[in-house]
Amino acid sequence: MTSRIDTLLADKKIELPKAAAPVANYVPAVIVGNLVFTAGQVTVWNGEFKFVGKLGKEFGVEQGQQAARLCGLNVLAQLKAALNGDLDRVKRVVKLGVFVNSTADFTDQPKVANGVSDLMVEVFGDAGKHARTAVGVNVLPLNLAVEVDAIFEIA
Amino acid sequence: MTSRIDTLLADKKIELPKAAAPVANYVPAVIVGNLVFTAGQVTVWNGEFKFVGKLGKEFGVEQGQQAARLCGLNVLAQLKAALNGDLDRVKRVVKLGVFVNSTADFTDQPKVANGVSDLMVEVFGDAGKHARTAVGVNVLPLNLAVEVDAIFEIA
Amino acid sequence: MTSRIDTLLADKKIELPKAAAPVANYVPAVIVGNLVFTAGQVTVWNGEFKFVGKLGKEFGVEQGQQAARLCGLNVLAQLKAALNGDLDRVKRVVKLGVFVNSTADFTDQPKVANGVSDLMVEVFGDAGKHARTAVGVNVLPLNLAVEVDAIFEIA
Repeated sequence: MTSRIDTLLADKKIELPKAAAPVANYVPAVIVGNLVFTAGQVTVWNGEFKFVGKLGKEFGVEQGQQAARLCGLNVLAQLKAALNGDLDRVKRVVKLGVFVNSTADFTDQPKVANGVSDLMVEVFGDAGKHARTAVGVNVLPLNLAVEVDAIFEIA
Repeated sequence: MTSRIDTLLADKKIELPKAAAPVANYVPAVIVGNLVFTAGQVTVWNGEFKFVGKLGKEFGVEQGQQAARLCGLNVLAQLKAALNGDLDRVKRVVKLGVFVNSTADFTDQPKVANGVSDLMVEVFGDAGKHARTAVGVNVLPLNLAVEVDAIFEIA
Repeated sequence: MTSRIDTLLADKKIELPKAAAPVANYVPAVIVGNLVFTAGQVTVWNGEFKFVGKLGKEFGVEQGQQAARLCGLNVLAQLKAALNGDLDRVKRVVKLGVFVNSTADFTDQPKVANGVSDLMVEVFGDAGKHARTAVGVNVLPLNLAVEVDAIFEIA
């Protein structure tokens, strides 16, 4: 039987990156009851880091949205791996935490965060609508532009 | 039947703002099982933004506490809307995340956070006592002073 | 009957600090169902603050790891107190949030976070492997170097 979400991803030409294995004593996602907590995902595509720099300096809003979307694609890749490939088990995107590497005068974190919020709704429809916290930070790992973590409800 | 919490809010003259609808692909609160996760709430009163600036520059501790309290009032407004108006369903305030827009030498984030912690205990009594994480950040959306998200347990 | 984790801590000579009582309207940990949410814990040892300063300025990676580990010891102390002394009830470390007080060009937050991630695996083995979000911030309470909060699954 074909996965509904996999079919949708193919139809929309949304390609997921490879789910990267953490290189330290943590894991990309933990399932507890009907919740999945993902680790913070960054702007990486199959091992290659993208979007190195800060919003308000190296990047503007539109690039920030692409960066946030890329974080979201990694969130979905890790979620899929945690669910043994079955994204159809997702009942709801519960919460997104969006950390935006920002200069002190860049204040459009919500617009940047829309890059990943829109992705979730594109993939899961109304079930993709989530609570969200978007904040600025003065630096992120490897000076990447955006980091996103997530909580999902699964069946 | 009158709501216990609504009566208490009226007695204490605590007025909640209107629960603002997000203007993007996310929602103010998600209920999953007996937990409610709220989106990050900022310093806004019925659509008008308040407390624009950073702690340690434009604002001191006392104004920061008022800002944090205002975030908390918006958290409660969103929670109430998510519970179809019935705040009596709240069993416990589980967790608050308090992000304080700070200069690099402002280190009183916990005092600022007390503004929203005190509100929760004022409203819910012992059930309002929560775990809390208060951190500084170099900037927040629209350069607002404080952002607060929350997790509640409901009956 | 002897606690398995207490014995392990003794064998490994891992000493927990005293669980400090918050001095405001919040609590160090909240249990909701089979989850425990801890408050953000900082670099304190029995009331004495340690590691005052920023990564990239006062501290390098190795000191940052020690700071993160100290936060983790406080997380465990608070968790133990919340569980009436019985750390054997821990089924899984679900999620760590690691906030690193950083200059804008310090980008090794993941290495710093390993200080607390390694501690969790040292104490709980495979059950200590968690999802993790590590970010930089421009300042933390009292200018301490690291702050860590956590979610645990308990039996």
